[in-house]
Amino acid sequence: MQALIQRLQQEARYLGNGIIKLDSFLNHCVDPLLMGLVGRELAQRLDTGAAVSKVVTAETSGIAPALMAAQYLGVPMIYARKKKPVTMAAATWSAEVRSHTKGDVITLHISSEYLDADDTVLVIDDVLGYGDAALAMAHMTRQSGATLAGMGFVVEKVYEHGRRRLETVAVPVVSLALVDLMDGELSVTAQSHAGGHYYG
Amino acid sequence: MQALIQRLQQEARYLGNGIIKLDSFLNHCVDPLLMGLVGRELAQRLDTGAAVSKVVTAETSGIAPALMAAQYLGVPMIYARKKKPVTMAAATWSAEVRSHTKGDVITLHISSEYLDADDTVLVIDDVLGYGDAALAMAHMTRQSGATLAGMGFVVEKVYEHGRRRLETVAVPVVSLALVDLMDGELSVTAQSHAGGHYYG
Repeated sequence: MQALIQRLQQEARYLGNGIIKLDSFLNHCVDPLLMGLVGRELAQRLDTGAAVSKVVTAETSGIAPALMAAQYLGVPMIYARKKKPVTMAAATWSAEVRSHTKGDVITLHISSEYLDADDTVLVIDDVLGYGDAALAMAHMTRQSGATLAGMGFVVEKVYEHGRRRLETVAVPVVSLALVDLMDGELSVTAQSHAGGHYYG
Repeated sequence: MQALIQRLQQEARYLGNGIIKLDSFLNHCVDPLLMGLVGRELAQRLDTGAAVSKVVTAETSGIAPALMAAQYLGVPMIYARKKKPVTMAAATWSAEVRSHTKGDVITLHISSEYLDADDTVLVIDDVLGYGDAALAMAHMTRQSGATLAGMGFVVEKVYEHGRRRLETVAVPVVSLALVDLMDGELSVTAQSHAGGHYYG
């Protein structure tokens, strides 16, 4: 994913407090061609032979990469909602997510109409930080009885150590770019394919 | 767009108070292959010869069709945010939207970093209802100095008459499917290509 690494090196900005600005291509202003590459790469690298039937993400900024991964796989993409809309069925799979930057707690909802024990799921999100949103999506997937086949992220904020928390989920975790902080400066690298701590 | 019309006829449900449930393929659970067709069709039917440089939508449910239209056109897709995130630049184009179902008012924001007088914009959204969100996106586009080339919607709720309110914007407006109410039942048709009230 050299295209992604280059965009990060050129455009990602560190704003302090662990916050990285990625809104020129990933959040807010989205590059659909890069998202197409990213979606395909995540789907391919998470291919464990399982027949994935749904891609699950959370609104809002996970939608673009998740939609492209789902398009590549030819399966529906479900985005968990932060508020239960009036159109959502009464029965939902749900999980709380605490925001580390804002301190508030939101509840994600997936309608039980679209996810059940017959499904095999990839969870895709834009950023892996502390891992709370990812853990919530894993939790909802398992609530539904579906099989979780893997989790994929466009960018991983290594310094927030979400990957360690995802070890409890015990599925493959792939990030296409690793961002770390060195003396308050961003360091961007592609994920190592060569075993070690990171699953490639 | 026979594929879209069929999905609407089979899956759209009228919930009363003007609310249509579309969450099995458009909102919440999204069909990426249908979105690919929809995005291409909107881009093609809104082609007026102008060199579109950005597709603009609003979070959340406009993102999927807007991303696919932007992918077809090979240009970035910007989604206006309902809350200004900490990563957003101080200067924004913004407009208020009143919710007819909930009665509250939200403010949409687009960073001035990504939209300016050099841009030519298509506004794409999932549903045209009363037209408030569409008018807000047209307003933000013009605030920025960009040229608005047209507005496209996957589904138009004819009974909410948003199209009349968009006449003030004076750009082509395309909807791929028209949904009306007849004695409390949904009626779904493809938009007429044959002139008349609707622009095809």
